Amino acid sequence: MTLRDARTHLDLMEQDECLRLLAGRQVGRLGVVDGGHPLVLPVNYLVAGDQILFRSDPGAKLTGSDRAPVCLEIEEIDEETRTGWSVVVQGRAERITDFDTPATQALKELPLHPWAGEKEHWVRIVPTVISGRRLSHPVKPPEPR
Amino acid sequence: MTLRDARTHLDLMEQDECLRLLAGRQVGRLGVVDGGHPLVLPVNYLVAGDQILFRSDPGAKLTGSDRAPVCLEIEEIDEETRTGWSVVVQGRAERITDFDTPATQALKELPLHPWAGEKEHWVRIVPTVISGRRLSHPVKPPEPR
Repeated sequence: MTLRDARTHLDLMEQDECLRLLAGRQVGRLGVVDGGHPLVLPVNYLVAGDQILFRSDPGAKLTGSDRAPVCLEIEEIDEETRTGWSVVVQGRAERITDFDTPATQALKELPLHPWAGEKEHWVRIVPTVISGRRLSHPVKPPEPR
Repeated sequence: MTLRDARTHLDLMEQDECLRLLAGRQVGRLGVVDGGHPLVLPVNYLVAGDQILFRSDPGAKLTGSDRAPVCLEIEEIDEETRTGWSVVVQGRAERITDFDTPATQALKELPLHPWAGEKEHWVRIVPTVISGRRLSHPVKPPEPR
């Protein structure tokens, strides 16, 4: 069943679809709070099982403090048809420091290769909310006068 | 002259190039702080002179409080070549309430048409920092073993 947001007319996507779309991408936007201000930057990430992982430089803004609230957003937008979808993961960043536990020892073998810089910190996003919205029936712009 | 970030190896873009790229797009990601947590959602926007404008619903999270800190991010990413650029505008959202001043009376004629919902509030982003980064020489992933 599709739920439609009455205010925005956006279709709310099922959790399963959000997870499928997240797993199919490797680049998203990470939102953090930096000194009370929002900051959004591209990040390459990897979905491994039920974990969303990215890498970060020590001291980088995107690392945030450990357990910092973060938001990962992915989307597909068609500017021509004004349609598209977005998936938003809200949660906390948790730095992985011990790679010798049963849960983490396979992580460093994963194909999560930063595009820029060394990014030696591995960070896991612990999601609290995963939501997705799809716009299939956009509001048409008025005809030019 | 191109400046390269020593940590990330990203080229820092000139202000002029950032503004040109912003003017050439109509959809970006708006980052806000919602109850201490970052939230990132797509937004369609318009550059009019030195103003960045978008529309919002009353009560929508993206409106934030008036003068709320916001971040607008645009990008072009090529997952194949692992290259791309992003431009980030950090500033404050300022709701436009008076459309009868010399500075604002032409605004409602601008082709800023929301994709979803009515979005009757007009919001101006007052930038404090505009920055852009380009990745032309990505770190190549290691060959699969």
